[in-house]
Amino acid sequence: MSSRLLIDVHNHVYLPRYASLLRSRSNAPRILSRLAVSGGTEERLLILDHEPSGGRPVGPQYWDRSEKLKFMDLHGIDISIVSSANPWLDFLSASSAVDMAKSLNEDLEEYCQTSPTVSLSLKRLYGFGLLPLVPSVSSNSLVQIVDQISSLPHLKGVIMGTRGIGKGLDDEALNPMWEAIERKGLVIFLHPHYGVGKEEWGEKENGHVLPLALGFPMETTIAVTRLILAGVLDRYPNLRLLLAHSGGALPQLSSRLASCIHHDPVVASRLKHDARYYLGKLWFDAVAYGSEELEFVGKVVSRATRYKSASAPTETDVPQSNKLLFGTDYPFFPPLEAQNEKWRSVLDNLEAINGVESWTQDEKDNALYQNAIDLFGLNQSKA
Amino acid sequence: MSSRLLIDVHNHVYLPRYASLLRSRSNAPRILSRLAVSGGTEERLLILDHEPSGGRPVGPQYWDRSEKLKFMDLHGIDISIVSSANPWLDFLSASSAVDMAKSLNEDLEEYCQTSPTVSLSLKRLYGFGLLPLVPSVSSNSLVQIVDQISSLPHLKGVIMGTRGIGKGLDDEALNPMWEAIERKGLVIFLHPHYGVGKEEWGEKENGHVLPLALGFPMETTIAVTRLILAGVLDRYPNLRLLLAHSGGALPQLSSRLASCIHHDPVVASRLKHDARYYLGKLWFDAVAYGSEELEFVGKVVSRATRYKSASAPTETDVPQSNKLLFGTDYPFFPPLEAQNEKWRSVLDNLEAINGVESWTQDEKDNALYQNAIDLFGLNQSKA
Repeated sequence: MSSRLLIDVHNHVYLPRYASLLRSRSNAPRILSRLAVSGGTEERLLILDHEPSGGRPVGPQYWDRSEKLKFMDLHGIDISIVSSANPWLDFLSASSAVDMAKSLNEDLEEYCQTSPTVSLSLKRLYGFGLLPLVPSVSSNSLVQIVDQISSLPHLKGVIMGTRGIGKGLDDEALNPMWEAIERKGLVIFLHPHYGVGKEEWGEKENGHVLPLALGFPMETTIAVTRLILAGVLDRYPNLRLLLAHSGGALPQLSSRLASCIHHDPVVASRLKHDARYYLGKLWFDAVAYGSEELEFVGKVVSRATRYKSASAPTETDVPQSNKLLFGTDYPFFPPLEAQNEKWRSVLDNLEAINGVESWTQDEKDNALYQNAIDLFGLNQSKA
Repeated sequence: MSSRLLIDVHNHVYLPRYASLLRSRSNAPRILSRLAVSGGTEERLLILDHEPSGGRPVGPQYWDRSEKLKFMDLHGIDISIVSSANPWLDFLSASSAVDMAKSLNEDLEEYCQTSPTVSLSLKRLYGFGLLPLVPSVSSNSLVQIVDQISSLPHLKGVIMGTRGIGKGLDDEALNPMWEAIERKGLVIFLHPHYGVGKEEWGEKENGHVLPLALGFPMETTIAVTRLILAGVLDRYPNLRLLLAHSGGALPQLSSRLASCIHHDPVVASRLKHDARYYLGKLWFDAVAYGSEELEFVGKVVSRATRYKSASAPTETDVPQSNKLLFGTDYPFFPPLEAQNEKWRSVLDNLEAINGVESWTQDEKDNALYQNAIDLFGLNQSKA
């Protein structure tokens, strides 16, 4: 891969089949129609009950592929790895979730497979499939859907929330799923949905700021910490987890986590490595909106090998940017006032990569596209 | 101040009067006696109900000043700024809390005033006083206790939890308190107690790791974010807030916070500055257990002036280490096995400062002692 590209690994879609499902529902999550202030009707997306301002406006940017491609063209994005947005299938029964996962995975394969090409071997769209991660689903069903996704050439991974099949990602019932995902080499995009801390948001009206800015990344932080504490990364060392929003608070709390583990008799001897070692086994989207944040995540990745073992000699630090991948979080964070200009949220994330003082251009290129090519095997077509 | 020192700004005490109060209680928070495995009795501290392992062992390190001085000698700590440990006075009625705050503040003054000296003008112990921050307390009472603390020459600030008088730190009823604290120039040490996220800890037994490593810093993060969103730092720009545990997750989530504010119609126009600007107005203890974490906090402080205004020219970045201050969190995080060796938690925090690659020795000295001298005015004796 010699020419430079821009690849967006954090880009959401509500496939038409999914949007129809949400429209058919009478409680959250749902899409509802209401009278618009401007006259006519507008559709609103209510992801959780009691959302401020009656949910957020939704439109073709959520389901129309041509809108996505327009957005990509506007921002010079060559390739997007598209994932269903939360709440995924969480609200369905096990059998409905299995059926819907199969259909949506086929839909997404079609959506990507028929997308324009970047080059002879590359499409503009690839996807993360969906697993039926709901209570009472069987391990067999999960493994079957992993197999299905793996058989669809334009799906390169799965997007996953933090609750597993109800008890979280440290649930041993998920072991067959981890094993299957590891064996198939699929990337797991770990993404928040429920948030954390809402009992602490207080009485002031702050719009969506607290749940979005803090609750979301904290949810991811807790989920991946529980996964580490449960030994999942010891048992499945080749799992490839991509964390949304640059890993939330995990990088900044990782040395504290290591210290708390070391000082707690219940867990002090449980894991193979210091907690900081596991951060070097993770990937992080570069959706943090600031250069200093990205540089720091890079350093936390880079130092990880030092924590492989208390006794072994220090290994060489790995390059700092090789686990960070550009993302936009489209179609969220659009400009407050509709316009045909580039989105500030996208520019912020691009400038964050290009502004990391200590990175060479090669390191920036890693985050802009090369890491995505490597992680998703985009130079090794399955088709 | 020419000679080098080591100053610990995060060092807790249960004053004897407070320990007696906890012993007199029959529900949490309390100190209870129970039969020890080794025979005899042992005391356990139960801060919250349903704590794993029946609370933690407590002993003279919590209340005996000579134990604290021994700890300081062992680790080469010249001066500690001592604060009551949580849960402070949160469980008392308003009138009891006022009385207890007054008495404990006098006790702490005596505790510091009669401590050994470092030099002609410096004691080894200074303190953060307590405010009666409980529901139904009057603003007048809060202001009176601020005045009391300010009149006690060895008390340099107040330690404060995140709930204010019940509704959090964005409660407008606290305005007279902020005004008084700002006027008196006291430092506020903002410290977590309740944690956040316990509904997400899951079913696995992980000891205290999740609440301590994640719940505590997330609580601080939410509290200071709410304080910023409420405009407290716009109204009281000279407030001096020191955040426990290096500000928790706030530094890493600060650009995301700025972006979420910018994109939310409810708050987009509310504050005078970009959210990142306010981080430059805060102080951070250096209790993060890792060099990369401290360096990053330093960079987040340093970049803050760039975010003063969207229109004004970029100001010069401030030095990176001038808002970080060494701390130990004593008597928490003792070695798992009792010994007379130095504590790993202390060594980790010292090595974290000394190991920041991009800091000069002067910058390290700032974090080791000079920032504390400046922040607490230790070269300007009130006595």
